[in-house]
Amino acid sequence: MSPQMEIVEDAVIGIRHGKIALIEKPEAIVRLDAREIIDASGCLVIPGLVNTHTHLAMTCFRGLADDLPLMEWWNNHIFPAEMKFANREMVYNGSLLGMAEMLLSGTTTFCDGYFHEDAVSEAAIKAGIRAVPAQGFLDLPSPSPAKTEKNRKVAENFLRAWLGVSPLVTPALACHTAFTCGPDTIRAVKEIAAAAGVPFWMHVAETRDEVQLIRERQGLTPVRYLHSLGVLDPTTCAVHAVWVDDEEISLIAAKGATVSHNPESNMKLASGIAPVPKMLAAGITTGLGTDGCASNNDLDMFGEMNMAAKLHKAAAHDPTVMDARTVLRMATIGGAAVLGLDKITGSVEIGKFADIILIDLRKPHLTPIYNPYSHIVYACTGSDVKTAIVHGKVVMKDRALLTVNLPEAIEAVNKLAREIAAGMKIETRGRHDLIS
Amino acid sequence: MSPQMEIVEDAVIGIRHGKIALIEKPEAIVRLDAREIIDASGCLVIPGLVNTHTHLAMTCFRGLADDLPLMEWWNNHIFPAEMKFANREMVYNGSLLGMAEMLLSGTTTFCDGYFHEDAVSEAAIKAGIRAVPAQGFLDLPSPSPAKTEKNRKVAENFLRAWLGVSPLVTPALACHTAFTCGPDTIRAVKEIAAAAGVPFWMHVAETRDEVQLIRERQGLTPVRYLHSLGVLDPTTCAVHAVWVDDEEISLIAAKGATVSHNPESNMKLASGIAPVPKMLAAGITTGLGTDGCASNNDLDMFGEMNMAAKLHKAAAHDPTVMDARTVLRMATIGGAAVLGLDKITGSVEIGKFADIILIDLRKPHLTPIYNPYSHIVYACTGSDVKTAIVHGKVVMKDRALLTVNLPEAIEAVNKLAREIAAGMKIETRGRHDLIS
Repeated sequence: MSPQMEIVEDAVIGIRHGKIALIEKPEAIVRLDAREIIDASGCLVIPGLVNTHTHLAMTCFRGLADDLPLMEWWNNHIFPAEMKFANREMVYNGSLLGMAEMLLSGTTTFCDGYFHEDAVSEAAIKAGIRAVPAQGFLDLPSPSPAKTEKNRKVAENFLRAWLGVSPLVTPALACHTAFTCGPDTIRAVKEIAAAAGVPFWMHVAETRDEVQLIRERQGLTPVRYLHSLGVLDPTTCAVHAVWVDDEEISLIAAKGATVSHNPESNMKLASGIAPVPKMLAAGITTGLGTDGCASNNDLDMFGEMNMAAKLHKAAAHDPTVMDARTVLRMATIGGAAVLGLDKITGSVEIGKFADIILIDLRKPHLTPIYNPYSHIVYACTGSDVKTAIVHGKVVMKDRALLTVNLPEAIEAVNKLAREIAAGMKIETRGRHDLIS
Repeated sequence: MSPQMEIVEDAVIGIRHGKIALIEKPEAIVRLDAREIIDASGCLVIPGLVNTHTHLAMTCFRGLADDLPLMEWWNNHIFPAEMKFANREMVYNGSLLGMAEMLLSGTTTFCDGYFHEDAVSEAAIKAGIRAVPAQGFLDLPSPSPAKTEKNRKVAENFLRAWLGVSPLVTPALACHTAFTCGPDTIRAVKEIAAAAGVPFWMHVAETRDEVQLIRERQGLTPVRYLHSLGVLDPTTCAVHAVWVDDEEISLIAAKGATVSHNPESNMKLASGIAPVPKMLAAGITTGLGTDGCASNNDLDMFGEMNMAAKLHKAAAHDPTVMDARTVLRMATIGGAAVLGLDKITGSVEIGKFADIILIDLRKPHLTPIYNPYSHIVYACTGSDVKTAIVHGKVVMKDRALLTVNLPEAIEAVNKLAREIAAGMKIETRGRHDLIS
């Protein structure tokens, strides 16, 4: 994923102090003196994947409510479940399980958005995954100066608490949407993020209804509205950006803002199809995201790549759109750039932190191989990832997680799920044996 | 997948003489006296998946040519590769590897179409998978009475050779398309299939160009043309059926013909989006298919389910379209009905052959579980299948194939791939170590 996208055969990659120190042919190495040697025979060695948008706590709601009209899904299921169950304990346990799932499927860096992001940060340090936890803000029940003041304090405290604590954690801030946050909160939160030099994001133009609502309230479409608030800049990411017109694409590009594309979530919720090929042509830095498990329902970035590559071919009636290399760049160096981390991760290059995954190719569905990019995007799934290294540390080896006690993490979420199922009066016939 | 779609908790399933003999609560069983007991704790036990359309030999071309314009893909890559390399040995080895991939990802029944289908039948018996190998016909370079006569002989000989040979194999016949086969061949091949009571299928209305071509040549759209030839009936399957109008949907429904929907292939080749929700509403028996590995690029029916469920939500702007149950029925009992096998497979019911898979739910990405259907369609991948049983025989157990020597099957295809790469002058930099 360097600019030249070289493929190096039979290389030795040396890691020192968490960073990639050497990429050489074995014959060029006089003395191989490593504390640990990982045999990558038969594997593709690629940068760990970057998930630019998720809500990890929502692993606790995986499959809770599917195939429903959007408003029913949100108003009658997800929102009440969050109101009732989204406490710090749920955020920690749901996030830790989500991190386990991500490491097991090749994601080594993610950006999260939820409440209690301090719990997400703690879980990330435990799991050994690179994290951009974004404390989320909402002006509920409605915007007010007091609410903005409170949000400002929470934002400042969150950044103060987490900046510089761990090389794995880059704290960030997020406003939920332009219809759940008032302009003062949006400006205040962005201002605090900008002052600290950390990422800021919002869900932007996810649905047609949202565009209509913002237009009615603000007299502008969402992207134009955010521009009018002065929040579009290179450290602002517009998540989803499904319903944006050509002028808005130019505006995002001109301001250097970035986009997180979440095709599986957008499809499952029938939100629409983001004009990603146009965004890429306009030069917008674009990454991929899985979104939360209530709208996907997994965190597998391989599935997201496959979907992104195929969806836009179908939408454009053009099989050359979103080729495998382009999509893989979005899922690695592109996503890293969205999060402001492309100087330290997103490619296997000397001097970057060693965020690396090994894909085991010795499987029927990955045989034969003519083109590694095609395999990664069109044939691999997360379960083909054999080993994952984050910041130079082996966190998953031969499919075994080394940082998280998996049975405990699973049981912690199953315990919460039993309470959620009871509290939400979910029909559990045929599954109580599985969640109990 | 019975009509009532019951979920039975903590059941014991008894298998005798290849068939499901018993489904009971353990406490109802006085004496458990089995030769082999498989512990399915923590698993979903569901019918094996049915792949209604593939070209298994094309596993040898997996990733050979992607992201290309359709005509360049076909004329400059796939067709020349087939002309040069599609011999009996390639069909056997490519198909055996494809069957290994299918069993490892939960498919227990498939319909194939290619040349040398006797080799596919032999491989299926070896792999222990239920097969509907369809000998394929083409009038190349152009239709002629002599060509039709030759096709008739090949068709009769193929059915004579394979009818009644193995309970796993139902031989079938296929005409490639209405533009590569003349009307006499189409009528002759269908007549022979009908006389033998075996399935017949054609690629139908896959692309807009095809519709245009058939209209120019025959004065009718593809479905109307096939109707005029008298070949639409309950044992005829229209594969793809992307570009069909409402009247054609009614015509397919009225004649009781079936449809194989291949969303990943249609998306990757940018063929279009088949109007499947309309077909289901019209009562058309519809199954799912992966298509060949040159246009997908895998044979994982879980991926196909996920794609089918999400694609049509996006296309219809309606998240309630193609719910998880509907999609799972298409991938099991629906597909079995497309192949005329719904009396013997496609559901876990007493009296049916035991074609069963176990999905291991004790994984982060399948935790927690509220709704098994959602999990199967939106969260599982083929690698979550722990054990596969076909015709009462355990063919894959704890992820190990028991019928196919996997390293040998992989090496046989890698050997062919080296020849193909050399013959097609494929740039193999960065991958010769992997295919050699």
